[in-house]
Amino acid sequence: MKNLFIYLLAFVSCLSVVYAQKKNVVYQELPVYGKLFDTPSKYHRVDTAKYKDLPARVKYLYTNSAGLFVTFRSNSSSIHAKWCVTDTKVSFNLTSIAQKGLDVYIKNVDGKWQYAGSKGTVITCDESILTDNLDQTEKEFLIYLPLYDETKSLEIGIEEGATFQPLSNPFQKNIAVYGSSIVQGASAGRPGMAYTAILSRRTGLNFINLGVSGSAKMEQEVAHMLAAGTPDVFILDCVPNSSPEIVSERTQYFVAYLRANHPNTPIIMIPSVVRELSYFNQVWNKRNTEQNVQFKKEYEALVAKGIKHLYYLDSNTLLGTDHEGTTDGTHPNDLGFMRMADQIQPFVLEIMHKHNLL
Amino acid sequence: MKNLFIYLLAFVSCLSVVYAQKKNVVYQELPVYGKLFDTPSKYHRVDTAKYKDLPARVKYLYTNSAGLFVTFRSNSSSIHAKWCVTDTKVSFNLTSIAQKGLDVYIKNVDGKWQYAGSKGTVITCDESILTDNLDQTEKEFLIYLPLYDETKSLEIGIEEGATFQPLSNPFQKNIAVYGSSIVQGASAGRPGMAYTAILSRRTGLNFINLGVSGSAKMEQEVAHMLAAGTPDVFILDCVPNSSPEIVSERTQYFVAYLRANHPNTPIIMIPSVVRELSYFNQVWNKRNTEQNVQFKKEYEALVAKGIKHLYYLDSNTLLGTDHEGTTDGTHPNDLGFMRMADQIQPFVLEIMHKHNLL
Repeated sequence: MKNLFIYLLAFVSCLSVVYAQKKNVVYQELPVYGKLFDTPSKYHRVDTAKYKDLPARVKYLYTNSAGLFVTFRSNSSSIHAKWCVTDTKVSFNLTSIAQKGLDVYIKNVDGKWQYAGSKGTVITCDESILTDNLDQTEKEFLIYLPLYDETKSLEIGIEEGATFQPLSNPFQKNIAVYGSSIVQGASAGRPGMAYTAILSRRTGLNFINLGVSGSAKMEQEVAHMLAAGTPDVFILDCVPNSSPEIVSERTQYFVAYLRANHPNTPIIMIPSVVRELSYFNQVWNKRNTEQNVQFKKEYEALVAKGIKHLYYLDSNTLLGTDHEGTTDGTHPNDLGFMRMADQIQPFVLEIMHKHNLL
Repeated sequence: MKNLFIYLLAFVSCLSVVYAQKKNVVYQELPVYGKLFDTPSKYHRVDTAKYKDLPARVKYLYTNSAGLFVTFRSNSSSIHAKWCVTDTKVSFNLTSIAQKGLDVYIKNVDGKWQYAGSKGTVITCDESILTDNLDQTEKEFLIYLPLYDETKSLEIGIEEGATFQPLSNPFQKNIAVYGSSIVQGASAGRPGMAYTAILSRRTGLNFINLGVSGSAKMEQEVAHMLAAGTPDVFILDCVPNSSPEIVSERTQYFVAYLRANHPNTPIIMIPSVVRELSYFNQVWNKRNTEQNVQFKKEYEALVAKGIKHLYYLDSNTLLGTDHEGTTDGTHPNDLGFMRMADQIQPFVLEIMHKHNLL
C-alpha cells in the first residue's frame, strides 16, 4: 500500500512537471499587410466585388494570399498558429509550405529580417508550432501567408503571460508588382521566397504582390483596377502569360492608362524570364523570344510617343546562366528567385532614387 | 449534299493532319546508374537482402531511388516516360517532382549537362511527356529518378522511327556520399538538384547518393556495408541525424573500419550544416553545436591515432550567410544546395588531385 502511494505520488509529480512545461497558448488575430488596397475580405489582395469586371480567373487569384503577412512583437518562447485554407490540391511544382503554409521571420540583432521557421499543411484547418525554444527577449516577428491558396482565417498564438503587441507595416512606400505565377511565387519553396517578399526584406520597401498565376494578360479591367491604387512605382512583369499577340494588342493601352492616371509614377517593364524549357523546346523558344521582342517594341513605341518615366529592365539572364534556376523549366526555384531579386533590386532602387522616392 | 461532302472531306483532312502529328511512342527500359553496388532490385541503391543486418529504416530508405539515373542518345523530338512509384504521401517540404518525379538533362553544345524539363506525379503509375518540341539532332539525355520514393518501374519513350541508343555511365570514378536527408535530397525542388547530382554534372565524377533521411546514424552495419564497396573517395555527411552522444560513440569505429578495409582511400568528414532553425531555437542550437564540436573532436582523435588520408571540411557556412538557404530551417532549398556544392566541390577535387585520383 505504501509502495502504491509512492508510485501514485511519483506519477502525480511527473504529471505536474508535464503540465508546468506545457503552457497555455493564447490566440490572436492581427491586421494583414501587403495589399495595394484595403479589402473587405481580410485575406484577399483585391476587393473583387468592387472590381467586378476583372476576368473571373483574375478575381479568383486575388483571393489567394500571396505576399500578405502579419507582424507583431512578443517575448513568447514559442509562436503558434491556427489557420484555414481551401481544399485545393498541392501543385506538382510547389511544396505545401509554399502553397498553403506559413513562413516566419524574426528581426535579428542587426535589424534584418532573418528566417526562423516554416510550416506546411495539406488539410483545410491546421494548428501548429511555427517556431519554439526561443530565448525570452522581446522580438519582432513577420509571418507570410500562403502563396497559392485563399487564407480563410489565421490566428497567431503565444504563450499565456508573454507580451504581445501588433506592429504596423514595417515596409515603406508601395511598389505594385503586377505579373504572372512567377510574381505570385511559383515555385518558391516557402512564402517568404517569392521575389517580392525577398525584395521587401532586403530594401525595407513594400513590394506588393499582384501576381495572378497564368492570368497576367494585361486586360483593360486590370489596368483600371491598378490605376485606382496610388503606389509609388508600378512594376509590370506580365509577359510570361501574354502571347506575342496579346503583348502587341494590350501593352499600349495598359501603360498609357496607368500613365494618364499617374503622370509622374515610374513604370518599370520587366520582360519574361527566358524559360529554361525554351533552350530546347522550339515552340517555347519561339513564343518566349517573340513575347520579349514585342514587349521591348511596345516600350520603345511608348517612349517614342512621349510617355515619360518609363523604364525597361533589359535582361535575358534574370534566372542566371547555369540553367538551374527553375523547378519545372518555367517557375523559379529559390535559387532563381534570389537571382531575379539580385537584378531587379538595384534597377528599381536606382529609379526610385532618380525620382526622389528614397 | 455537295456541301456535306466538302465538310466531310475537310473533317477527314483535319483528322489526317492530327494523326500525322501524333506519332507512336516506343517505350524502352534502360540500365540504371548511380549505385555503389550492383543490386538485384534494379531501382534500389543497396542490396538490402545481402546487407540484411542494416537497421530496418536504413534498408527501407535504400529502396528509394535518390541519385539514380538513366542515360541514352536519341534524335526523338519528344521524350516520354511511364513510371510507377509507391503510394506514400508527398512531404510538406518537398515537391512531388522531387519526391516522385523525373528530371531531364540534355548534353548541350558545350558538352555540359543542361536542364531540359521535369515532371511530378502524385499517382502510383503515370505516363507523361518529359520534354518535347526538340530539334531532331542527336542528343544525349540523362534522366534522374525520384529522390524520396521507391521507383517500381521506368520506361523511357521516344517517337517511333527515332534513333535510340543506351549510353554507359557518363560519370567517372566513384565518390560514396553517406549522409542524412540532406544527402538524399530534401528539399531540392527536383531530383537533379540534390547536391550529389549537382556535383556529378559539374565535375564529371560519380557522386553516389547514399543518403538515408533521418537515419544516418553511423551504425556498424552501415560501416560494413559501405566498406564492401570500392569507391575512390568516401564522404561522411552523417552528422545531422546523429546526436552528440552517437557522434561520440560511433565515429571512431565507423571511420576506423573504413580505413582498415581501404587503407589509401580518402575519407572526407563534413560537419552538419548549421540548421537555420538553430539561430533562434535554443534546443537546436545546442544540439547542432555539440554535434559538430564532437565530430571535429573525433576527427582530431582519429588523426592523432595515426589514421591517414582523413579530411575535415571545416565550415559553418555551407548554406551561405543570408539564412535563406532552406525550405524548412533544416533542409536546403535549391539555393542552399548550390551553395553546399560550391564549397564541397573544390575541397573534394583538391583532395582527389592530391591522391592522384584525377
